[in-house]
Amino acid sequence: RELSDPAEADAYLSSPTTTWIHIQGNPGTERLQAFGDLFGLHPLALEDVMNVGQRPKVDRYDGQLFAVLARPWFDGDDVAIEQVSIFYGRGFIVSFDTGDNDPFKPVRRRLQHSRGRIRTRSADYLLYTLFDFVIDTGFPLLDDLGDRVDELESDVLEQPRAAAAREIHRLRRHLLLLRRMLWPQREAVNNLLRDGDDIIHEETRPYIRDCYDHTIQIMELIEVYRDMASSILEVHLSAVNNRLSEVMRVLTVIATIFIPLTFIAGVYGMNFHHPGSPWAMPELYWYYGYPVVLLTMLFVAGGLLLYFWRKGWLSRVQ
Amino acid sequence: RELSDPAEADAYLSSPTTTWIHIQGNPGTERLQAFGDLFGLHPLALEDVMNVGQRPKVDRYDGQLFAVLARPWFDGDDVAIEQVSIFYGRGFIVSFDTGDNDPFKPVRRRLQHSRGRIRTRSADYLLYTLFDFVIDTGFPLLDDLGDRVDELESDVLEQPRAAAAREIHRLRRHLLLLRRMLWPQREAVNNLLRDGDDIIHEETRPYIRDCYDHTIQIMELIEVYRDMASSILEVHLSAVNNRLSEVMRVLTVIATIFIPLTFIAGVYGMNFHHPGSPWAMPELYWYYGYPVVLLTMLFVAGGLLLYFWRKGWLSRVQ
Amino acid sequence: RELSDPAEADAYLSSPTTTWIHIQGNPGTERLQAFGDLFGLHPLALEDVMNVGQRPKVDRYDGQLFAVLARPWFDGDDVAIEQVSIFYGRGFIVSFDTGDNDPFKPVRRRLQHSRGRIRTRSADYLLYTLFDFVIDTGFPLLDDLGDRVDELESDVLEQPRAAAAREIHRLRRHLLLLRRMLWPQREAVNNLLRDGDDIIHEETRPYIRDCYDHTIQIMELIEVYRDMASSILEVHLSAVNNRLSEVMRVLTVIATIFIPLTFIAGVYGMNFHHPGSPWAMPELYWYYGYPVVLLTMLFVAGGLLLYFWRKGWLSRVQ
Amino acid sequence: RELSDPAEADAYLSSPTTTWIHIQGNPGTERLQAFGDLFGLHPLALEDVMNVGQRPKVDRYDGQLFAVLARPWFDGDDVAIEQVSIFYGRGFIVSFDTGDNDPFKPVRRRLQHSRGRIRTRSADYLLYTLFDFVIDTGFPLLDDLGDRVDELESDVLEQPRAAAAREIHRLRRHLLLLRRMLWPQREAVNNLLRDGDDIIHEETRPYIRDCYDHTIQIMELIEVYRDMASSILEVHLSAVNNRLSEVMRVLTVIATIFIPLTFIAGVYGMNFHHPGSPWAMPELYWYYGYPVVLLTMLFVAGGLLLYFWRKGWLSRVQ
Amino acid sequence: RELSDPAEADAYLSSPTTTWIHIQGNPGTERLQAFGDLFGLHPLALEDVMNVGQRPKVDRYDGQLFAVLARPWFDGDDVAIEQVSIFYGRGFIVSFDTGDNDPFKPVRRRLQHSRGRIRTRSADYLLYTLFDFVIDTGFPLLDDLGDRVDELESDVLEQPRAAAAREIHRLRRHLLLLRRMLWPQREAVNNLLRDGDDIIHEETRPYIRDCYDHTIQIMELIEVYRDMASSILEVHLSAVNNRLSEVMRVLTVIATIFIPLTFIAGVYGMNFHHPGSPWAMPELYWYYGYPVVLLTMLFVAGGLLLYFWRKGWLSRVQ
Repeated sequence: RELSDPAEADAYLSSPTTTWIHIQGNPGTERLQAFGDLFGLHPLALEDVMNVGQRPKVDRYDGQLFAVLARPWFDGDDVAIEQVSIFYGRGFIVSFDTGDNDPFKPVRRRLQHSRGRIRTRSADYLLYTLFDFVIDTGFPLLDDLGDRVDELESDVLEQPRAAAAREIHRLRRHLLLLRRMLWPQREAVNNLLRDGDDIIHEETRPYIRDCYDHTIQIMELIEVYRDMASSILEVHLSAVNNRLSEVMRVLTVIATIFIPLTFIAGVYGMNFHHPGSPWAMPELYWYYGYPVVLLTMLFVAGGLLLYFWRKGWLSRVQ
Repeated sequence: RELSDPAEADAYLSSPTTTWIHIQGNPGTERLQAFGDLFGLHPLALEDVMNVGQRPKVDRYDGQLFAVLARPWFDGDDVAIEQVSIFYGRGFIVSFDTGDNDPFKPVRRRLQHSRGRIRTRSADYLLYTLFDFVIDTGFPLLDDLGDRVDELESDVLEQPRAAAAREIHRLRRHLLLLRRMLWPQREAVNNLLRDGDDIIHEETRPYIRDCYDHTIQIMELIEVYRDMASSILEVHLSAVNNRLSEVMRVLTVIATIFIPLTFIAGVYGMNFHHPGSPWAMPELYWYYGYPVVLLTMLFVAGGLLLYFWRKGWLSRVQ
Repeated sequence: RELSDPAEADAYLSSPTTTWIHIQGNPGTERLQAFGDLFGLHPLALEDVMNVGQRPKVDRYDGQLFAVLARPWFDGDDVAIEQVSIFYGRGFIVSFDTGDNDPFKPVRRRLQHSRGRIRTRSADYLLYTLFDFVIDTGFPLLDDLGDRVDELESDVLEQPRAAAAREIHRLRRHLLLLRRMLWPQREAVNNLLRDGDDIIHEETRPYIRDCYDHTIQIMELIEVYRDMASSILEVHLSAVNNRLSEVMRVLTVIATIFIPLTFIAGVYGMNFHHPGSPWAMPELYWYYGYPVVLLTMLFVAGGLLLYFWRKGWLSRVQ
Repeated sequence: RELSDPAEADAYLSSPTTTWIHIQGNPGTERLQAFGDLFGLHPLALEDVMNVGQRPKVDRYDGQLFAVLARPWFDGDDVAIEQVSIFYGRGFIVSFDTGDNDPFKPVRRRLQHSRGRIRTRSADYLLYTLFDFVIDTGFPLLDDLGDRVDELESDVLEQPRAAAAREIHRLRRHLLLLRRMLWPQREAVNNLLRDGDDIIHEETRPYIRDCYDHTIQIMELIEVYRDMASSILEVHLSAVNNRLSEVMRVLTVIATIFIPLTFIAGVYGMNFHHPGSPWAMPELYWYYGYPVVLLTMLFVAGGLLLYFWRKGWLSRVQ
Repeated sequence: RELSDPAEADAYLSSPTTTWIHIQGNPGTERLQAFGDLFGLHPLALEDVMNVGQRPKVDRYDGQLFAVLARPWFDGDDVAIEQVSIFYGRGFIVSFDTGDNDPFKPVRRRLQHSRGRIRTRSADYLLYTLFDFVIDTGFPLLDDLGDRVDELESDVLEQPRAAAAREIHRLRRHLLLLRRMLWPQREAVNNLLRDGDDIIHEETRPYIRDCYDHTIQIMELIEVYRDMASSILEVHLSAVNNRLSEVMRVLTVIATIFIPLTFIAGVYGMNFHHPGSPWAMPELYWYYGYPVVLLTMLFVAGGLLLYFWRKGWLSRVQ
């Protein structure tokens, strides 16, 4: 059921079953304070609910448990993080989500239709279910980032693109944000396991452990993507370098061959003229002057080509 | 009240309430010694108060607690660190700050106006408040640095700027200094929590834990900014590289096309002249000599353009 | 024997000996559930068997042990990972492998032929054998990758190849995947050793320790190959750089020598002509004009060569 | 007093006070053996005194304590490390220093003039004083290195210098050596604190802890300088890259504009001449031929300038 | 004495003294099995003796101790690793070395000549001696590598050499191999110390601790050389970059000055000729045409030189 007033929750509290109240979006300070008074929540925890952007953590306040989790999603092209805050005490669970869409809709539906193990289990199983839902929102996001990594990789392996460095940077930015917010989640879930004998029952512990495994898997994926991004950037820089090297090679071969030839042509374009002097460019007046010069040019070009061929500059680096 | 003489503090000490004395700026060796004698402070701790630039830490001297904290602020464009030293013993708190402005003014005002939880709580809550104030001065500073990172990022993503490397270096310098001074703060706050049963009351511990969370958050932000700075530098270097590659590509295409053409023009600019020889540049005297040479040039240029087009050098790297 | 129905396994269970059942390929949900009911397997573990791609781990569910291992192999040119899941309880071992080929064929043959220590030992020795087989599949793979590293190295040391960066990237990709999947294997085997007093007998422990040594050896090899790949990439980039530098050196030497000479030739190719003016290129009409200009050119070229020789640009960087 | 013979020390040993003997420079094997026999020093420790270059450490040999410390100093432009070895037993301290200058002169003077706390305290306070003196020799050295880092930084930020990489390398070399020798010092001092109840008195422990803080501070400074050096190197490389890019830009703009113009001039420098042919360069004989060609050149140059201006190549990267 | 048959060793075993048997080279499977039967060695340990290339380690098999150590040496220009395997039990030590030369010859000689502490001490002292000998073979090797590092460094600091990257890579390869094989040695020796109360006597422990110090020293040297190699590579790359920058600067200055001049010369080399037109290159027929053009060229060249001088391109980067 949907409640419009925290006071309505009071009736449920006295019943022996577990009451779960979920508040979507910004609760507002007063409503939050009302909840705090009703369930005896710690003021520091309430502050953390209001000041969104907290690191994921699990705190204990005499018998109660307060958890902050991070729910990442793609807001258009950017990674956004919603804060999920969960209070867990005797007979109640109160959860808050800062986003616009309720991530726990499927949980509620299951509860209403008495489907799955969720109704027959104890309250800590419900707590596990909430943790599980929030943590597993990381996987589709990472799949998406993984696709971008693969795409970037095949783009860069095919041909150098100037935008690659920028896109890799954007990817890294996402990964940095995710790592910062999801890394403490691992510790938070582990915190549940460490000295949670009194709060988490023995039969729920394997489920929490499974949850913990997921947080580790997410961190490992993030690290792998970061390493991939670095490696792709290196391939990209190497490709840009190769292209530059290739461009310079062609320029050098062509310029170096024609510059001496042009010089020779320039020499015989000079206008020295002294009718009586045998030193005034007599070549110009030889019978075979022109073909001899052309042959000379051919020899020079051939020699340079031979030099480049032996240096391996005529074929591109494979 | 403001005191002008350490001896005046004596009267307050005998009262059952907690006395908090704050000394702003350099206390001077004698005045410091007077305080030391009055409260029985350890000589090593007094030395640390005088020799500013200490690493943040929490030390215990039989029943007394001595804390050094770092308060960072922007001194113009540079990050400066003020040392805050706090003595905490039975019935008294003595705090020192090396800066010009008292960071605890709001705390004092709250105490005077009996606002908040601060007056009704025990002395360790006041200690927490001081820690909290000093540690949270890191956040606006990091927000400012975060803005600089974002600014640098959008600058660099837009177009390469030669000064980018220098600005990234300056940013890193700030982050290095902050990391060096704020990293041990984490450990210091944790030290309060670890075996502080006798000094920190049970109900104040969640507050200290909150403080500890803040120190971790600050360190994580610093690490994220460092990673961002490195990534931005790589984008910048890649952009400079791309620009160089682009410049070379244009030079190569234009030079490589015109150098052979100029050579051909140079050949027919030669002055070989032998009236009787059929080898003396007969092309010059052909009916269609000139247009044939122009066409040859066109073919050469076209061939080279085709070659470059197939190499993908005519369009810039996207 | 090959079974077609999980129910057939029931008969074996009641016997005092250990029953080992191996299921190759996808078991299908129903068949898996049947096994789960028969042996009392935990539903979370069964889920992990179905959702392949799990991190290697060893979990304990009241008395039973559930292990996930990763079996890497070369699928053509790519590294593929098959998931091996092993249940170990009182009197039974159930193993699953997602691949097409049974990796435990040699174990079965040994058992059937009563060869080796395997038949006379207790059930945990069989468990060790299965672990050993799965873990040791990493060695031939790493040998193969090691060969590729060596090949790349000798290729790159000989001459720069544009594809080197790409091949190193592919290698790194394989190593990243392997590291991600094999790293937790180490911890999983160690988990067997840590508090396994009740499950692993004292005389089997040295064997498990040997297994653990192998997982460490594999991780060390992966790290060494990663370091090698980075080092090779640096050699490659340095070689590309050297080649670029070499190309530019040749271009600079030849262009810089001939450009001034061509300019001189260009000057004397000008058509200034004023019969009465002594300023209209009188050099053209000198008796020794031409040889003087040629000598000038020779001096200029010689001077530049001398300059380059002293700068050490005439010989390539060794 | 100065002793010339180890045997003279015997008399002091029997007195109830603590005897401190300091040996400067190389003691020689025999003299060392004499000391060893006199005080019952362990042969391994004596070996370590002779074989200088040991890692700093604190070892315990039944009741005795043997410490090796590293005393760094600037030997001209190079960092040199002297080994300080200290034996501490019941009633005696024997210290050795391999350098030429006695680092403990001020300690002796204080002892002789009964200044400070040093005479009234127990023997472990003297031990602390020796440790403190040796460890604090690191600070002026690091100040000096810090100055070099700052100098390099401002040099590199101002303009690229070819020698920067070399100087940064030299700096790193110093830092590597310091880190290698001073890092274990931290552990050695901590060793004194850990289980030294019997050797270090309760009231001396805060002093040793202070000493330990100094070792950490030194290591942190070394790490900061290393990070600074890396960052400066990156700024330097970026500056070299920028300069190269700038040089290439100017070359490209000027070469690319004049190469086509020179080609046009070359064309009209050709000597095609056929009196009867209307195709033999008729432009040369047009009334407005020359100004038309000059205007064409102007258009070409203008077009290219426009192209470069739109590409942003006419202004340097800021 | 040299034995030709394992059975001969039996006689020695019954004596109350410690028997040390050393087997050089490949023992062969049968002989090894004979030893295994004689001394009751664990089959897994025997396997490790045969399969050379094991990681150094210390294992315990009920009362016996099995150690694998790595003995590095220079095989020509490559680093090779020999495996030394040592069994240590009540009354015997059996050691194996895979190399050609017995590393324990000096130990045997000392034993035979009753020199040193080695004969009078207990068996674990002999064990220590063997460990010490194997571990200390690392020092001359690292000295040699240190010399190569220094040589490379002075080579690279003097002038860029194309082979530097390759040599640094080879060095790194050696260091990687050494690190991989010697790193676990540290742990192995530490293993002796940790819970070796029953095996290693109290008076031998300082010696083992000394041994442990040596393994750490070796690892630290390897790390320092790796850091040095990276730093040298960076210096080398920077030098190559500087040289490229220098080459381009010279090319740019000379090409940029002469290209416009050549263009001007080209213009006045054009053959426009129209007797009646005042537009047909009248400059060619001016009285001062030629010197005016030469002066123009001089101004252009001077202007460009001034431009370059103000940009600081005429002097090389210092």
